[in-house]
Parts: sequence; structure tokens; C-alpha cells
Amino acid sequence: MNKNYLEKYAKVIVEIGINIQDNQILVINSPIECAEFTRMISEVAYKKGARDVVVNWSDEKFAKIKYINGKEEIFDNFPEWKKDLYTNYARENAAFLSVYASDPELMKDVDPKRIMRASKASNVALSEYRERMMSDRNVWCVVSIPTRAWAKKVFPGISESEALEKLWDTIFKTVRVNGNEPVEAWNKHKINLRKSMEFLNNNNFRYLKYKNQLGTDLKIELPQGHIWLGGSSISEKGIEFMPNMPTEEVFTLPLKTGVNGKVVSSRPLNYNGNIINNFSIIFRKGKIVDFTADQGYETLKHIIQTDEGSHYLGEVALVPFDSPISNLNILFYNTLFDENASCHLAIGEAYPVCLKEGKNMSKEALKAAGVNHSLEHVDFMIGTEDLGIIGITQEGKEVEVFKNGNFIY
Amino acid sequence: MNKNYLEKYAKVIVEIGINIQDNQILVINSPIECAEFTRMISEVAYKKGARDVVVNWSDEKFAKIKYINGKEEIFDNFPEWKKDLYTNYARENAAFLSVYASDPELMKDVDPKRIMRASKASNVALSEYRERMMSDRNVWCVVSIPTRAWAKKVFPGISESEALEKLWDTIFKTVRVNGNEPVEAWNKHKINLRKSMEFLNNNNFRYLKYKNQLGTDLKIELPQGHIWLGGSSISEKGIEFMPNMPTEEVFTLPLKTGVNGKVVSSRPLNYNGNIINNFSIIFRKGKIVDFTADQGYETLKHIIQTDEGSHYLGEVALVPFDSPISNLNILFYNTLFDENASCHLAIGEAYPVCLKEGKNMSKEALKAAGVNHSLEHVDFMIGTEDLGIIGITQEGKEVEVFKNGNFIY
Repeated sequence: MNKNYLEKYAKVIVEIGINIQDNQILVINSPIECAEFTRMISEVAYKKGARDVVVNWSDEKFAKIKYINGKEEIFDNFPEWKKDLYTNYARENAAFLSVYASDPELMKDVDPKRIMRASKASNVALSEYRERMMSDRNVWCVVSIPTRAWAKKVFPGISESEALEKLWDTIFKTVRVNGNEPVEAWNKHKINLRKSMEFLNNNNFRYLKYKNQLGTDLKIELPQGHIWLGGSSISEKGIEFMPNMPTEEVFTLPLKTGVNGKVVSSRPLNYNGNIINNFSIIFRKGKIVDFTADQGYETLKHIIQTDEGSHYLGEVALVPFDSPISNLNILFYNTLFDENASCHLAIGEAYPVCLKEGKNMSKEALKAAGVNHSLEHVDFMIGTEDLGIIGITQEGKEVEVFKNGNFIY
Repeated sequence: MNKNYLEKYAKVIVEIGINIQDNQILVINSPIECAEFTRMISEVAYKKGARDVVVNWSDEKFAKIKYINGKEEIFDNFPEWKKDLYTNYARENAAFLSVYASDPELMKDVDPKRIMRASKASNVALSEYRERMMSDRNVWCVVSIPTRAWAKKVFPGISESEALEKLWDTIFKTVRVNGNEPVEAWNKHKINLRKSMEFLNNNNFRYLKYKNQLGTDLKIELPQGHIWLGGSSISEKGIEFMPNMPTEEVFTLPLKTGVNGKVVSSRPLNYNGNIINNFSIIFRKGKIVDFTADQGYETLKHIIQTDEGSHYLGEVALVPFDSPISNLNILFYNTLFDENASCHLAIGEAYPVCLKEGKNMSKEALKAAGVNHSLEHVDFMIGTEDLGIIGITQEGKEVEVFKNGNFIY
């Protein structure tokens, strides 16, 4: 792995992803396998003025042992100390960095009910933390680095060390640290994303109609006052940060009850170590009324059945088929990468920041405006080479948005 | 490493060390480098009926980055969530297993003041947890497994993998899992330790007088009602457990104000990644009035200056020179092993369980009985091949306890 790129990556995460401020606390969620990189990030963050760096270590192999052997009742309980860890640091204005690297195959023998119960308990306990992140009150950033199991899944048929090397190289490319001036590259990229956002925001579409050969035939209504966002965000304290690295999407929210038709997945979805593949979902007045899946049906069912809001969509995101990550032609089995290679939707919670004044609206006001609320937020990929999207303006005028998988503005 | 021994080791820890009970919670403090072994322990514990296993991961390399780069004030603060983690599980009757494996050289460039401040803040925040452990209310157990840096320090001049292999073999021997019947071997060992305890308890010495060529010339008064303990302990709920594995010591507490003379260290002491070596301490009426150290003087000074009680002794422990770990003739730079290869004393907190009814006495009553109280409890090794110890009974009769480093009963 190129050490020079590695150092640039750490620097870009701290300076652009988190944009750490003097005397701020940084909380890092990191798999223990990623320790070396997490230590590197910590050192850069301290040198940039962080007051303290706290690491919340995790180990999915240990989690699997728990899922298989733990007593039933523990999966409905989220420990108080862990809730305090997240909530208290969030209230202290900490920045949160998640190093996401999960073995897409690890949990396939685990009862999906247990995973879903644990995930629900965690989402309930961490609701204040999650609300803060989803409304950008705190600074947050999700990144990935290779782990052995993940690299082998992405690049089967070559040795583990070659696979790791190849995944590192791929990640360095997607996060724009393989050139001389990563900061400049990111600034350029932000400007590009802004063009798409401006096109969409200026047109202020009321509907988007999706259609492709895979079987997607979907009409999505967008709420009054929706905003298309992309690239960087601004925190409550006015700090610009990059929630995802890489990021290629522009996104907004749907009107909760305004989705009708059928959508077909275009990439496998890795949900907590379980793969859901070749699935389709049918919506009527926003609600999921039917779904199928060749693989991971039970997991998809549990996601949808989490709560009322998990029967509805919360995000609509556009990524051109001809875009950097998509062009790598790699299946990542990692949503951070796959969602940035493909148009996607998300089941569940919507980002209030995608609505004008949404950050300052009460839960009731958000609900009245058609903003979906759920414990879940699960992105899934629907973009294809032949995807066409027609926008319909408030005045009923049709405008071509996507043709053959790409923007045509 | 012998997989068969490894499995036996994990089993012995869970069954004899922790003696896990049905539906009990197990908390494991584990370095991330020991993840594989910690996962194995977890699985055994679940299979033996544990309700839940919680791992509190640590990484000393990350800790070093914090010590070097963190802002001053963070070293006096112990996070609330971490206090809750320990305290709440302790109140829920959890068992606590610590996997102790530290690089003896890692912290040598770190300001010892920062380490001591962090250690003090931790001891203050965890006082309830520590009191519970030191009075055996909860079940607790300390074990070690090799890490790369530790193995290289213990066995320099051979390759890392050879050193690891050798340290594994050594540990398997000392924890009695290299035979066919580890449980039987431990039961036999408990009976042997009981013999020494009975000899000492039956004699009910008022004083112990230590002397060797190294320069130790020390007289320790033992309080009325002191008890010599060793091997297993019994928790509040009546569960037998083994606080240390390995363990070769029998131990009691000194009368706080009854220690006079000089004691010279016989093995280096690894304190949180700092070595203290070739040191001597002079006591008057129990109090440390002078000390020297060829290496680690500042660290020793900070330990002694922690609080009032860290100027006094809290533990007196006897280990024959001719005993299993001592006979390996290895310097471990790990107190769990070195203290069980050598007679030792501890600066700081005394174990209330070493006094009749001590478990049920108030803090004031313990103080009145001469039981030392401190945030610290630091064992240090003083045993030598020529160590002689004379016991003086309540009636003033002299009885030889140790001659040439060994019991002579």
C-alpha cells in the first residue's frame, strides 16, 4: 500500500471529512482490525488541535459469537454506558468519524431476527445521537479502509495480500488522494456536485419518474420546499464537513406518501454482514405493499418491519452511471462505495436538512410536511446503464433528468 | 502454539479463574492485540451459561499517542461512560476478567506525570469498582497472553515468532494446562498453597523480619486478626474463583504503621509500560521516608506521591525461591508473573479480606485496625535465593519462616 497516499488519506479525512476544530473532541468508531489506520488518524487529529480522541472499538467476529451464543433477552437491550458515550460526546459538540469495514459474508449463519433486534435497540437508545447526525448538528464522517475479509470478497481469486493492495489502491482513487493535491481535487469535486444540485434545485421538480429494463417503473413525488444536497455539509456551529468519503451523490427527500410503482435493485446490499440481492419493492401511496428478494428475503423483511416509517422511503439520490466509482466496475458489498456508484433510495428516516428550514422544525411540523421518520435508514442501489428519469415541474412540464443512466443537463 | 493447550487454558480461565455462573455477565478487559484469545474465552463463557459477554477493548499504542499529543486537562478526567461501564456491571454481579499484556518499553518516552495523573483519575472514578474487587465482592481474574512486543522483551535475540511461541509455552506451563488434567493440577496446587497458609495462620506471627545480601533488612508488624490467603477466593455470592492465574503466593496485610527498615527490589517492575529497576525503599513507622532507583525514579516517585496511603504498604506476600515460575529463571517484566516468582510487597491499598471480618467492616473500622487505604496498589518483587525471614510470635518466640529463599516448615 502506498504510504504516501495513506498519509494523504488520513490528512484529508481529518481536514476535509471532519474538519477538526481546535479543542474539539473526536470520537472514532473503529473495527479493531483497522487499529493502525485509526491510530494514524488520531495522531493527525491531535496535531490539528483535537483536545481528545476517543475510540469506540468494535469487533464483528466477537459480535458474531454473541449473536450465536448470547441469551435471547440481551438483543433487546442496549447498554446504558454506550448510550452515554455517544450522547454525551455529541452534546459536547464532538465530531464523529466512523471507519466502516465489514465482512459481507460474516453474519450469513446468524439468525437475522437477532441482528434486527439488536439494531433496533441500538437505534432506539441512540435516537438523540442519530437525530443530531441526521440533521448535521454535529460533524460526522463515514470512511472505509480494507479489511482482509472484505478485500477477499471484492477481489476473489487472487491472494489475500494482492486483494488488500488492490482495495487500498481503489479506495485511494475514489477518495481522490492519488494525485498531488487532494484538497484541490476535493474542491473541484464539490463544484461539480454543485452543478447537479443547482440544476435540480432550479427546476424544483414535483415528480421524478424512473424507468429501466430491469423493471423499475417508479414515480416519486418530492415535497414542497425540498432541497437537493451533495458534497459537504455545514454543522450547527458553522463548520463545513464531508459526511461521506467518497461521495458522488446529490440527494433529497421524497414526499412520504408520494411514491408509487415498482423499483428493482441493481447491486447487492450488505446489511450488517448479510447480503440482500436481486430484490424488488412495490410502493402504493408511499407505502411498501410488496417485495421480493432472491437472497436475504428475511433480512429485507425485518428491515421493512422495523416500524411504521420503515415501510416508506426517506431518501432519493442521483449518481450518474458514468461517474468515477461506477466506472471502476467493481461490486463493493459496502454501501458507502456502492451507493456512490449508483442512483439509490433509502428506506426509513429522511434527512430534515433536505427541507427548507427542516433543521429548525419540530417533529410534528416535519411529519406534516411529509418527512418520513423511522429508526432505520437503509440505502439501496437502483441505478443502471439504461436508467431514464423524467422530472415533472410544478407546472406539469416534463424535463429529461437522466438518459441512459446519466444527467443530460 | 499448542492449540490443545490453548483450548484448555481458555477452559481453565472460565471454569476455575472466573467460575462463570449461569446467567452471569462477564466483562473482559482486553488489548485489541489479544482479540483472538478473547473471542475464544467469550465463546467458552457463553457455552458455560454466561448471559452476556462485554469486551472493553484497549490499545496501548493508541494510549501512547494520547499521552504524547493530548491536551493537558484530559489526563485528570476519566470519562463518565467508562465509570458507568465498570460500576454498573459490578453492581449487576458481573465477573471481571482482565487480559493483561503490556509492552514493557512502550511508554518510556512518555511524561510519567501524564501516566500517573491518568492512573489517579481512573482510580478515583473507579473507586467503587476497585473496592468491590479488592474485597472479593465480585468475581475477578487476571491472566496474560503473549503479545509481540512483550515476547520480544522477555526473549530477546530470537525471532518474533520464536519468542511468541516460547512465551506461549511458558505461560501454558505456569497456568498448569500442559498436562492432561488441568483441573486436577489446580486442585492439587490449591492444597499445597493451603499448607503454607495454615503454617502461617497457625503461628499467628506478630512480626516478620526479612534479611538478605542484597541489602534488605526489614521488620514488618502484622495486625491483630490478619489472615494469610492464597489460591482461590470466595465472592459475596459464595462463588470460588482464582483472582490470578498463575498464582504461587500466600499473602496478608501489614500493620500500616508497623513497617521499619530497608527493602531492596530483586526484579524490575513494569508499571504501565515504564520500567522501574534496582530500587530500594526505607520505611519508618510504616511510612516511606526515602527511596532510590537506578531506573524509573520519577515513576516510582509519582507512585509514592499519589496520596497519603501510597506512602505505606498494603500487602505482604511470600513465594518460595524454589517454586515453579521462579525456577523458569525468566524475567517477565509483567507483574502477574514476576510477583508469582518472588516474595513481594505492595505499596498502597490493602485487601480487607486479609483481616478477620474485614469484608464487613466500615472504612473507619478498617483504618483503626491498621489497614492501609490508597488509590494505588503496586506490587514489587523482593525475593532472592538467600532471603531469610524470621517470624516472631505474639509471645515473642522466634520461628524460622524462610531460609535461603524457601519455607522451612
